[in-house]
Amino acid sequence: MEIAQSLQQIQSSYIREILAAASDPNVISLAGGLPDEKTFPIDLMKPTLENLANMPEVFQYGSTAGYGPLLDHLTQSYQLPETHTAMICTGSQQGLDLIARAYVDPGDVVVMEAPSYLGAMQVFGLVQANIATVSQTEFGPNLDELETCFAQQSPKMFYAVPDFHNPTGVCWATEIRQKVAELCIKYNVAFIEDAPYRELRFTGTELPLVSSFCPDNSIVLRSFSKIASPGLRIGAVTGKRSYLEPLIKVKQGADLHSSVPMQALLVGLLKHEDFNVHMENIRTLYKSRYEVLFSELEKQLPADCVLKAVDGGMFIWVEIPECDTFELAKTLLSNGVAVVPSPVFYPKADEAKAALRLNFTNAKPEELTEAVKRLAEVLNQA
Amino acid sequence: MEIAQSLQQIQSSYIREILAAASDPNVISLAGGLPDEKTFPIDLMKPTLENLANMPEVFQYGSTAGYGPLLDHLTQSYQLPETHTAMICTGSQQGLDLIARAYVDPGDVVVMEAPSYLGAMQVFGLVQANIATVSQTEFGPNLDELETCFAQQSPKMFYAVPDFHNPTGVCWATEIRQKVAELCIKYNVAFIEDAPYRELRFTGTELPLVSSFCPDNSIVLRSFSKIASPGLRIGAVTGKRSYLEPLIKVKQGADLHSSVPMQALLVGLLKHEDFNVHMENIRTLYKSRYEVLFSELEKQLPADCVLKAVDGGMFIWVEIPECDTFELAKTLLSNGVAVVPSPVFYPKADEAKAALRLNFTNAKPEELTEAVKRLAEVLNQA
Repeated sequence: MEIAQSLQQIQSSYIREILAAASDPNVISLAGGLPDEKTFPIDLMKPTLENLANMPEVFQYGSTAGYGPLLDHLTQSYQLPETHTAMICTGSQQGLDLIARAYVDPGDVVVMEAPSYLGAMQVFGLVQANIATVSQTEFGPNLDELETCFAQQSPKMFYAVPDFHNPTGVCWATEIRQKVAELCIKYNVAFIEDAPYRELRFTGTELPLVSSFCPDNSIVLRSFSKIASPGLRIGAVTGKRSYLEPLIKVKQGADLHSSVPMQALLVGLLKHEDFNVHMENIRTLYKSRYEVLFSELEKQLPADCVLKAVDGGMFIWVEIPECDTFELAKTLLSNGVAVVPSPVFYPKADEAKAALRLNFTNAKPEELTEAVKRLAEVLNQA
Repeated sequence: MEIAQSLQQIQSSYIREILAAASDPNVISLAGGLPDEKTFPIDLMKPTLENLANMPEVFQYGSTAGYGPLLDHLTQSYQLPETHTAMICTGSQQGLDLIARAYVDPGDVVVMEAPSYLGAMQVFGLVQANIATVSQTEFGPNLDELETCFAQQSPKMFYAVPDFHNPTGVCWATEIRQKVAELCIKYNVAFIEDAPYRELRFTGTELPLVSSFCPDNSIVLRSFSKIASPGLRIGAVTGKRSYLEPLIKVKQGADLHSSVPMQALLVGLLKHEDFNVHMENIRTLYKSRYEVLFSELEKQLPADCVLKAVDGGMFIWVEIPECDTFELAKTLLSNGVAVVPSPVFYPKADEAKAALRLNFTNAKPEELTEAVKRLAEVLNQA
């Protein structure tokens, strides 16, 4: 059976391949984007897990928009205005997929920063969007490029990860957030704000969501994979009702609704009195690992590598001298360290600047140190 | 933001509206397709539910194809040949959505029986398939129409529910199954076999899957919503590897993977020594309810209504004299009984013969009796 045209353009995921190779016990993987299994708040989930057997209603078909108590909790904790609503998705990845399916016709222009989140490139590729890119500075997207793009290409939406961007770790400055919102309003471009790492800030104070400056021009994607557990596959989307109704219509066909026991488990966890303590623990742990990775990189990497400090998230982005980064990643892998080379994060791979994405949340401190040693050895030889 | 063209053609779901109305406590609903909450094998799930807290690995990101132990169990219990494989979906509804997205280009011909499952019409509508229909006899699809359709329209796939069809309850005869498989092979049409009700047979013996006669031309969708619990949102797809690989690629973008704790819960349940007893209990319960509904309908309905006996599943299809069935359903609703009128099950609603779909799995026997009384009153007046 011949596959659909939309799928013929989708690249096989390099990350999946490298992650498979990285499962070799001799390889230290900085390639994935996995939270540390030990951070999963299973103790805090236990009371709800044990109580699920007394909640037969969660085993029945549920509402497409989501489990009432979870929707209520999120509506309250995100302080959504009356005109806005929340819906639950099978991971925030599904939220993004629903947005693409509900709004993007083949050829519609969708703007992203370059580099950008691989899963978003896949999703917009599947709907055959015309992906336009703007470059990223250390404070966020290049605003001149963004306005030119908005003015000349009339995009339907601008997708971004303003808090601890994947892969670069950049956190947009407040001024940039305001200006992006203004541009979205001015040019009538929907802002799709993906915020999976927002709660993983370990330095400085939380900045307002970009969407808070353009609430009626935006949709926010919320992930619980980094603060609760990715295995549950529960995420959320918020925005004005008229924006979310088409998503619910697509979701009905896509999977009817997300797992209700998992939604009940999540709301039990979010309401647990010790949830904030858990969040503090994660942030402290990830901060300490970040500091190990960053200081080791500073010490050991050749001087022509450029490191960017981050205030949160899961990744450090290392710019390296121009080279074949795929070849380099292969060499690194055979030297026992897995990383992701920059071109996979660019909609147009040939526009990529040579860089590597390094994850610091899943490896232990001694592994991070050893990984940098292996990385530095190869880079020094190159 | 303007919605995508593919979504503009999707009708708002009449069933969702009628189900909302049917939640009125004064209404007896025969409209849904819900299993009885009391059949959920929560006791058999309890040991796994309580053990999940000791399985941190199920809370991490999982494999897109599914949780290893569940895949192993299904591969074994479905006795899949070496060249075939299984993948897990967020409900079998997602399996269908993935098939449509992976294989159907706008305008591609997809064949269905008329009437047919509403959720399939939605999914194929979203990918802008050209839906061709063949009529259904009491033994399965009309083979002459099917061959003409295959020969003249070169469809990509034929989607069907051969076991206790939704909405008609028809179970295809073995000879029809063989001939459909032959036609699919002859005309190179993929057979998409949706089998959510297969295990709900309460009379007679199991017939071979249509796919067993054309294993390399088919994909099978398996649901656990009717035998375990719909709330979990776990289904499965089986077929030859080359058929399933594109589905896995789409699923990566769609939701990365399905909930791992729910997959672990399901495999624990399926392996429970009392699972077969549970299945027997469901079948016995549904048989008794079916017999109540059927005998009451026989007794009370006007003579010009045509009833079809079924050997399993969840529905009885009642053909009624030609009338405005939507108007009738509204009148029935205001008289305290919710049913689904036939046109919603036809890709071309104006081709529908007047009929009503009645569910017998969710209402108690006394409710079924009372519902038929209300139904008969209205039909006798009409």
